[in-house]
Amino acid sequence: MTAILWYWPSIPGRGEFVRLALAAGRIAWHDSARDLGAEALMADMARDRATPPFAPPYLEIDGLTIAQTGAILAYLGEVHGLAPAEPAGRWFAHQLQLTIADLVAEAHDVHHPVGVRLYYEDQIAEAKRAAQGFREERIPKFLGYFEQVLERTGTGWLTGDRWSYADLSLFHLVQGLHYAFPLRMTAIEGDYPRVIALGHAVATLPSLVDYLASDRRIGFNEDGIFRHYPELDAA
Amino acid sequence: MTAILWYWPSIPGRGEFVRLALAAGRIAWHDSARDLGAEALMADMARDRATPPFAPPYLEIDGLTIAQTGAILAYLGEVHGLAPAEPAGRWFAHQLQLTIADLVAEAHDVHHPVGVRLYYEDQIAEAKRAAQGFREERIPKFLGYFEQVLERTGTGWLTGDRWSYADLSLFHLVQGLHYAFPLRMTAIEGDYPRVIALGHAVATLPSLVDYLASDRRIGFNEDGIFRHYPELDAA
Repeated sequence: MTAILWYWPSIPGRGEFVRLALAAGRIAWHDSARDLGAEALMADMARDRATPPFAPPYLEIDGLTIAQTGAILAYLGEVHGLAPAEPAGRWFAHQLQLTIADLVAEAHDVHHPVGVRLYYEDQIAEAKRAAQGFREERIPKFLGYFEQVLERTGTGWLTGDRWSYADLSLFHLVQGLHYAFPLRMTAIEGDYPRVIALGHAVATLPSLVDYLASDRRIGFNEDGIFRHYPELDAA
Repeated sequence: MTAILWYWPSIPGRGEFVRLALAAGRIAWHDSARDLGAEALMADMARDRATPPFAPPYLEIDGLTIAQTGAILAYLGEVHGLAPAEPAGRWFAHQLQLTIADLVAEAHDVHHPVGVRLYYEDQIAEAKRAAQGFREERIPKFLGYFEQVLERTGTGWLTGDRWSYADLSLFHLVQGLHYAFPLRMTAIEGDYPRVIALGHAVATLPSLVDYLASDRRIGFNEDGIFRHYPELDAA
């Protein structure tokens, strides 16, 4: 049965973590709002539901409606085999995903430190201050952690001897950081060879190659989470 | 077997969501860093582990080490009965928890909009701007959502006819918002009668009454997530 994904149609955003998992797991999905538009998404959000979402993305699958990226991926991991089956690996994949989500949220807040309701142009000064700490401390702290995890597994993957949704998400996180902070990422990526190698391995997964080359994969842009504002980047 | 919780010893922080679940679920735990101090926590963090935590809280339980508040609670929900057993309810509890976590993170960022490495005193101007949007838009948006969920269940609980960890977390979120923004919360709490009633119901759960009155429950303070800075509050 085809899963139904609801997410904003013009940005990768948090929906992209779900799209990557669906594509890599060869789970057919209908990307509803890309066909029907953002208004259809908002109308669907307002529908009466047993388990209403607070915000997109949400996924209708197996008779359930699940919102929150981390919960959707945990479900796909557990029920559709996109994470280790044994408990330690399954919970570790989820823990890693929520850690990735923390840095994703911080990457967003760099360009909107004062609030989501204000335009970037109204908080550039604050964004510049926030970006410095993000570039110099937060990116290295998180990437260093994932590098250590990969050093420990020694398999090239975060949770065992094959990929899980957490690997896909780390790939996308690094892609987003490269898009938003190319000077900084180019300067430091040599410190995280295993993280970079994981990205290449994900990008060449047979189940993902077609997806990544297709127009189902939405490019990064300045309406999304990862935005390239040159004034926020530095080596 | 006694679970072992590792979290900063002087703030409720994210650890409190775990403590509440353990207490309400009558799961014995050792609050390690409260006995041994923050340095012992940092030393334990640096230990070699199959599933290393990125940050506290983390819980050693049933032979596993699980970090990330949302993952810990999902585990307690699934394995220790603190969430519905049927899939729709179990995943909804997790979705609600991650939504609560989003507002918790925003509540922290209000007083640290520019970055965690800077003192509050170095970002008061930005914090005042951030607080206005948080008070006027974010709190009502989230509490309105939880009110709708409660209106739909009609049981007084978020996920069915008894409490789950999500209810405990919503209680603590509302307590934190009341501590940090007393003027604002007093002004608007009448709009969310079911959310407020849930808080009272959690506070009088037989399994929680003793915990909440004990010194195991750490009071809110200005080193934590929810901080009372009068200049950030307004009706």
